[in-house]
Amino acid sequence: MKAISILVFAAAAAGFSGAASAQFAKPADAIKYRKSALFVMQQHFARVGNMVNGKVPFNAKQAAEDAAVAESMSKLPWAAFGEGTDSGDTKARAEIWMEMDKFKAGADKLQTEMGKLAAASKTGNLDNIKKAFQATAATCKSCHDSYRD
Amino acid sequence: MKAISILVFAAAAAGFSGAASAQFAKPADAIKYRKSALFVMQQHFARVGNMVNGKVPFNAKQAAEDAAVAESMSKLPWAAFGEGTDSGDTKARAEIWMEMDKFKAGADKLQTEMGKLAAASKTGNLDNIKKAFQATAATCKSCHDSYRD
Repeated sequence: MKAISILVFAAAAAGFSGAASAQFAKPADAIKYRKSALFVMQQHFARVGNMVNGKVPFNAKQAAEDAAVAESMSKLPWAAFGEGTDSGDTKARAEIWMEMDKFKAGADKLQTEMGKLAAASKTGNLDNIKKAFQATAATCKSCHDSYRD
Repeated sequence: MKAISILVFAAAAAGFSGAASAQFAKPADAIKYRKSALFVMQQHFARVGNMVNGKVPFNAKQAAEDAAVAESMSKLPWAAFGEGTDSGDTKARAEIWMEMDKFKAGADKLQTEMGKLAAASKTGNLDNIKKAFQATAATCKSCHDSYRD
């Protein structure tokens, strides 16, 4: 899975140059794709959050599973921010395409933090999971504050 | 990843009993989740299809990557067909909940065929990939014919 992850990431990285937008039949598909991937990621991430915040009982297996899915999903959206996908049914701000390097750095950071969360979740230690969850949530918020309406 | 896949599948299987619908804050989230997961799956599956059908040049690495993502995604939607998710912004037919065992068998078959496609894609043999792609596409169609408006 490691090799695949690297490939997915490579594809995602290519997306920032606009090259990967050719993967989508039309800009609306790219927008729908990135929103879909982010929503699936958010759902699994939130399930870990519900355990971390005591809203649902902690279940180590479930947390590990949800964090793993969230990490996998975190690699996908970025290839779909190619050129021509800045308008349509999207809350993405024009700033993304104006400062793509900064946006890309944020996307990289999210993936790094999601990786740490997945690793922490495998240990089954709730304190570690909590710490990693909060760090990951901070990267979500930071990017949304800057780049999402 | 194997262990995680089994866990994801276990969660998905639980979904058919309605137990996993508790994973979603509201039915609309479950509907959005399954549509999102299926859309991401379809996009990656279609990329393999474009190579199989000669619409884009065959790239073994890319095909293996796309098939792997499609396989991962194929495990996710089924937990989101719990009770109370039969109406709303969905094309899912009532028959799904009337014959859940049959629907579940279709979902299982899709995952099996997606697994074969991912395995074939790792070999880099286009004929094998083509065969597995067609078998997988047949399971998509069969389920859509029966269960999607």
